[in-house]
Amino acid sequence: MLKGKNVIDPMDLSLEELDEILNLADEIIAEPNKFTHACDGNVLAALFYEPSTRTRLSFEAAMCRLGGKVIGFSEPNASSVAKGESIADTIRTIACYADVAVMRHPKEGAPRVAAQYSDIPVINAGDGGHQHPTQTLTDLLTIRATMGRLDNLTIGCCGDLKFGRTVHSLIKTLSRYENNKFILISPEELEIPEYIRREVLEKRNIEFKQVRTMEEAMDELDILYMTRVQRERFFNEEDYIKLKDTYILDNEKMKLAKKDMIVLHPLPRVNEISYEVDNDQRAVYFKQAKYGMFVRMALILKLLGIY
Amino acid sequence: MLKGKNVIDPMDLSLEELDEILNLADEIIAEPNKFTHACDGNVLAALFYEPSTRTRLSFEAAMCRLGGKVIGFSEPNASSVAKGESIADTIRTIACYADVAVMRHPKEGAPRVAAQYSDIPVINAGDGGHQHPTQTLTDLLTIRATMGRLDNLTIGCCGDLKFGRTVHSLIKTLSRYENNKFILISPEELEIPEYIRREVLEKRNIEFKQVRTMEEAMDELDILYMTRVQRERFFNEEDYIKLKDTYILDNEKMKLAKKDMIVLHPLPRVNEISYEVDNDQRAVYFKQAKYGMFVRMALILKLLGIY
Amino acid sequence: MLKGKNVIDPMDLSLEELDEILNLADEIIAEPNKFTHACDGNVLAALFYEPSTRTRLSFEAAMCRLGGKVIGFSEPNASSVAKGESIADTIRTIACYADVAVMRHPKEGAPRVAAQYSDIPVINAGDGGHQHPTQTLTDLLTIRATMGRLDNLTIGCCGDLKFGRTVHSLIKTLSRYENNKFILISPEELEIPEYIRREVLEKRNIEFKQVRTMEEAMDELDILYMTRVQRERFFNEEDYIKLKDTYILDNEKMKLAKKDMIVLHPLPRVNEISYEVDNDQRAVYFKQAKYGMFVRMALILKLLGIY
Repeated sequence: MLKGKNVIDPMDLSLEELDEILNLADEIIAEPNKFTHACDGNVLAALFYEPSTRTRLSFEAAMCRLGGKVIGFSEPNASSVAKGESIADTIRTIACYADVAVMRHPKEGAPRVAAQYSDIPVINAGDGGHQHPTQTLTDLLTIRATMGRLDNLTIGCCGDLKFGRTVHSLIKTLSRYENNKFILISPEELEIPEYIRREVLEKRNIEFKQVRTMEEAMDELDILYMTRVQRERFFNEEDYIKLKDTYILDNEKMKLAKKDMIVLHPLPRVNEISYEVDNDQRAVYFKQAKYGMFVRMALILKLLGIY
Repeated sequence: MLKGKNVIDPMDLSLEELDEILNLADEIIAEPNKFTHACDGNVLAALFYEPSTRTRLSFEAAMCRLGGKVIGFSEPNASSVAKGESIADTIRTIACYADVAVMRHPKEGAPRVAAQYSDIPVINAGDGGHQHPTQTLTDLLTIRATMGRLDNLTIGCCGDLKFGRTVHSLIKTLSRYENNKFILISPEELEIPEYIRREVLEKRNIEFKQVRTMEEAMDELDILYMTRVQRERFFNEEDYIKLKDTYILDNEKMKLAKKDMIVLHPLPRVNEISYEVDNDQRAVYFKQAKYGMFVRMALILKLLGIY
Repeated sequence: MLKGKNVIDPMDLSLEELDEILNLADEIIAEPNKFTHACDGNVLAALFYEPSTRTRLSFEAAMCRLGGKVIGFSEPNASSVAKGESIADTIRTIACYADVAVMRHPKEGAPRVAAQYSDIPVINAGDGGHQHPTQTLTDLLTIRATMGRLDNLTIGCCGDLKFGRTVHSLIKTLSRYENNKFILISPEELEIPEYIRREVLEKRNIEFKQVRTMEEAMDELDILYMTRVQRERFFNEEDYIKLKDTYILDNEKMKLAKKDMIVLHPLPRVNEISYEVDNDQRAVYFKQAKYGMFVRMALILKLLGIY
């Protein structure tokens, strides 16, 4: 069903397709050795027009653990782009060499354009402040594996809700499952964009509230999704410094939370979660990185039509 | 016969050796799965002292599809060169790690020097404006696979014939086959160098003519070989801008051509071929990229003595 | 015994452990094909926060020749460090993707910190002017394989003994074997640091002498360990130019040496060994590079608990 498909936006995937991927990821987690040679003879192209070690290594490890090979580049200046080549031409050439392509690009929409010209499936690994569907898949797998469900959850999203694309994708996706509620914790300057509030939450009658402090929300949450306040999203240094330390999770705040709440973070973190929290059982953000590799393994297998 | 050989200049290969490589490439195209583990346990070193994504990825994909592994670097500053090491020392070290080496270098002659000191076969993947033998192999395989022969052809070469090394190599190589004719289409400023005209074409009594417009030549051609007008070859911006748009292939011009003519291009293209031409059956430049991978697979197998 | 261990400092390894690694390396040298699939399904992360082609390619080739896969980066700016992530967080993420990590870092102590937070074995591939344990393993294997023993040797160390970490490690390690003597050949400005003289040599009553010219020492040596005078270690260009050519090995000096003396060099060399010496049977520095790959293969297998 997923064979040959492009994955550009998390919303490209139906709930059935999401399920299919997550179920296969579960199988991989249960018996990883069964998949050691599943992608034998297959090649993944990792096209990183913008450095992103974490995402790139996650994809590369995923393909390696399936027995496949990886080619690609991790910086724009190492690519033919410097010679003025279009994305369309690049992907058509890459499609001669590889069986599946992963693209990270600073320009919104670039992976969508690539997919239009490609003979092989294209996976968007982040396009500007736009989409990053495999991060969403990672979040879903982590939640399902640790909470046992994707519905009937109260999700707190904390930090930079304005520019944080992972949060936008997560809200859109979890809104598709029944009876989820959102508590949006941010300073006024970094509130979620109007279009998400109107077009996603209000339109679908999803329960949500916006608060200014973590303390107001902690005891209600099943999931706390922390995000990094990225320096590069700010227009001036002063605003960044004023706001970056506002929403820091520490053991004191963790005391207010439920015993089975989980803390997620797309990583890398800077200082929005104190190191002391790492030892808390409820901190699953490093596990999350592992789930990220497993879900990418599942996605690759599905798009190649191997499973 | 080719085992252990270095491939620095296309002219290093006899017609018999060319045949041997092209025949093996045909076998690979027919049954790629047969070769999935042919290079098991072998390592290719990709030494790119100058970025060239296309060529590098083609070699890497070739080795991966044979079951071999790839090590290397894609930029000069990532190499020991920064510490003042000679090419001779670098290759002697690399020869301890790998079974075959591919070298791209901005300095003409560098791969030849490396080959002198190497215990493993060295393949030149482009040295300055000089040689690029696997591009020539790619062109030969594409022509043979689509036209069915390498002789009795009328070949049009269009664009930058002065600095375009792929055209020089192609002319030299196709001059070795019987009864080929050349039509050289370029502005006066970018005509083929005197030494090719004298030493290759005139000396061997090869039929050729030089024209200024594509229109004069189109209806005679079996092959149209388009080249990019590279900004970096020009001494001043003004000359570049004046000439770069002069020789653009479009559907209008394609109407003048034979029905079974083929259009080749070493890629990347900038705008010397209009996108509308891509849908023309006679445009085989993306297929050419695929043939490039197959011919590199054949070359690696031959140099390693596996086939 | 070595399974799961970190290798940060050569002194972390007991003589028994060193023996274990060197013995396995001997087995690999004798029958390399036996190990072609030993690391099937395993992933090595190469984390190079500072470029070092030689060491990186040696590790990558080692893992490839064991059938394992490699992920990683070769430059700091391609890493998440740019986003302000700590070493602790990076290694915890990497440990989700890989089975063993190799780290090169400009800051002394960084690999030690990484090891503290890592669930997988961490190998130090050089931290500033500090430790580089696999270079020491390489030296040991080369000496043992060519001289047949690691004790009862007279070792000459020549060149930059002040900043050359490979020499420091070698002296410390060979001091652990019986009856080795050292002759330290350097200008006054580049003598070995006081702490090595006092804490290692004098404390353990190791026989050594310090001389100013190679001629004084040559006829006594079983091993001559040459080092590069690194430009980057000098505070001013003048000192570098004055000293860099002082200790150059040539055929004239080789005439003074024993017939079975061996010449080692960690490479890359600049001009401290004349090219004419390369053809001398006693010059084993390129063989040494090959031993470096074999000993890394052995180390990886041991840390993963496969052998």
